[in-house]
Amino acid sequence: MRALVTGGAGFIGSHLCDRLIARGYEVWCIDNLHLGQIRNIAHLERRPGFIFRKCDVAEAGALDALCGEAQFDSIFHMAANSDTRAGSADLDLDLRLNFTTTLEALRAMRKHDIKRLFFASTSAVFGEPAFKLTELSGPLQPVSTYGASKLAAEAYLSVASHTFGKQVVVLRFPNVVRERATHGVVEVDPGRLEVLGDGRQTKPYLYVGDLIDAILLTWDRSSEPLAVYHCAGIGETTVREIAELIVAAVGRPTTRIEYTGGDRGWPGDVPKFSYDSSKLRALGWTPHYSSTEAVREAIRRIRANGF
Amino acid sequence: MRALVTGGAGFIGSHLCDRLIARGYEVWCIDNLHLGQIRNIAHLERRPGFIFRKCDVAEAGALDALCGEAQFDSIFHMAANSDTRAGSADLDLDLRLNFTTTLEALRAMRKHDIKRLFFASTSAVFGEPAFKLTELSGPLQPVSTYGASKLAAEAYLSVASHTFGKQVVVLRFPNVVRERATHGVVEVDPGRLEVLGDGRQTKPYLYVGDLIDAILLTWDRSSEPLAVYHCAGIGETTVREIAELIVAAVGRPTTRIEYTGGDRGWPGDVPKFSYDSSKLRALGWTPHYSSTEAVREAIRRIRANGF
Repeated sequence: MRALVTGGAGFIGSHLCDRLIARGYEVWCIDNLHLGQIRNIAHLERRPGFIFRKCDVAEAGALDALCGEAQFDSIFHMAANSDTRAGSADLDLDLRLNFTTTLEALRAMRKHDIKRLFFASTSAVFGEPAFKLTELSGPLQPVSTYGASKLAAEAYLSVASHTFGKQVVVLRFPNVVRERATHGVVEVDPGRLEVLGDGRQTKPYLYVGDLIDAILLTWDRSSEPLAVYHCAGIGETTVREIAELIVAAVGRPTTRIEYTGGDRGWPGDVPKFSYDSSKLRALGWTPHYSSTEAVREAIRRIRANGF
Repeated sequence: MRALVTGGAGFIGSHLCDRLIARGYEVWCIDNLHLGQIRNIAHLERRPGFIFRKCDVAEAGALDALCGEAQFDSIFHMAANSDTRAGSADLDLDLRLNFTTTLEALRAMRKHDIKRLFFASTSAVFGEPAFKLTELSGPLQPVSTYGASKLAAEAYLSVASHTFGKQVVVLRFPNVVRERATHGVVEVDPGRLEVLGDGRQTKPYLYVGDLIDAILLTWDRSSEPLAVYHCAGIGETTVREIAELIVAAVGRPTTRIEYTGGDRGWPGDVPKFSYDSSKLRALGWTPHYSSTEAVREAIRRIRANGF
């Protein structure tokens, strides 16, 4: 099995590469190193079956050239601008990194006869719904360019599956935590921890290992043209709780938590959402960490690793 | 009131220009003349308050330059590749004409402080749903690049409304008929009428005058950031009925109807869908023509006008 992992040096992509290599896949990991970092995959670089290439998937023809080098069975399309805060300031950032990359993956699939694609999607495709979201829920009214660009990508992948004969697995992630993360809702300096928003934003956090389990399970078990799953952990955590866990772990006794105020961290942040992930659960998926345990474990590992 | 109508020389856009001029608006009609035709607006060219410019909205900066000439109150974004059959063969056609044009409109709105936008959307954002569609329905899984490009555009307009402070009205059209149309499910030569598909595709058709009523009503009555409406007429018509009405009107006694076969006209055609338009009805909208009457009236007018 020869898989192409876009964004493979990123936070989640690198953990996926670990697990695909452990399964015996040949893994071609590509990354433009915009958010991805070589340190995330340094431990893989001498493993047999692991190939890294610096490659910007959004660049027209880049993926086409790569697919000329080897026949891939599948693409795990993890490349994205996951920093939704940066995307809210710049209309083109998410468009290029989330949507254009997906179109380029789709073009490469059609030209090089690649049959299957996994897509890393997001709860942000929904905007700010007031109810528990299933895979069949509507409406989809994103409030961030991040969510809009992912929804636009999903729309084209739907066509790829229903009309162009490809098989696509879409997993809509919740907020995911662990080491190798690139950004978040808190910023620390020695005496002071700044929290974006009023700290009452409440979300289900998931430990990255549990997410990779969900990726592989949905990948192994889906054969319908378009398989969509929601992935959420157990319970929810407020941003205030996260801040307090961080201060307890790394702060000094005098560290102050300062809230920037407002009901959201940045324009386009969604302060609260709730997933129904019973479809994924029915496949046998059970997360090992609850939302707050996931946050605690991430803090512990970041302290141990230094990143 | 100074309105910019993109795609204003098109089938529906030109009818909208007629009505906006009749209301006393100053109308700047722009069109790249890809599907739009000068003959559709020839009767308006000497009317006071009507300005036509040939302009390709998808071209970066074109709309920006135009918006430097006059301060628009609103944009009616009608420009699109409405030929879903052509779009199914070419990934970029709908992308450019439906999605990129919308992004360019959004950029111009942000830069030039244009407050409101009307968007001509489509039932095709849904794909092939098995149930009656409300504005809150999900999932949205388009099967054509036409539907995908319109859903991608809706996604960005959702952000424009919820996060960038714009007011957006989205009306999702059914199939619309009348003179000035550019393409469709039947092709005629003197002795033979070719029907794409098996003729059993069943859709609600709407007469264009009834659609323009819906556009203006939703435009006048909506003040929420993002107002979405479904527009469908009364009843449905099969493609077979349309073919028989055409042959009865213009055929010779010996004209044969030939079906290309298959359950749809082309890849990405949706053979059947059903709209719940009670939200639009609640505003007081009532179509004057039923689906089959709309088809009959369109045939009558095309015969009378020659196009």
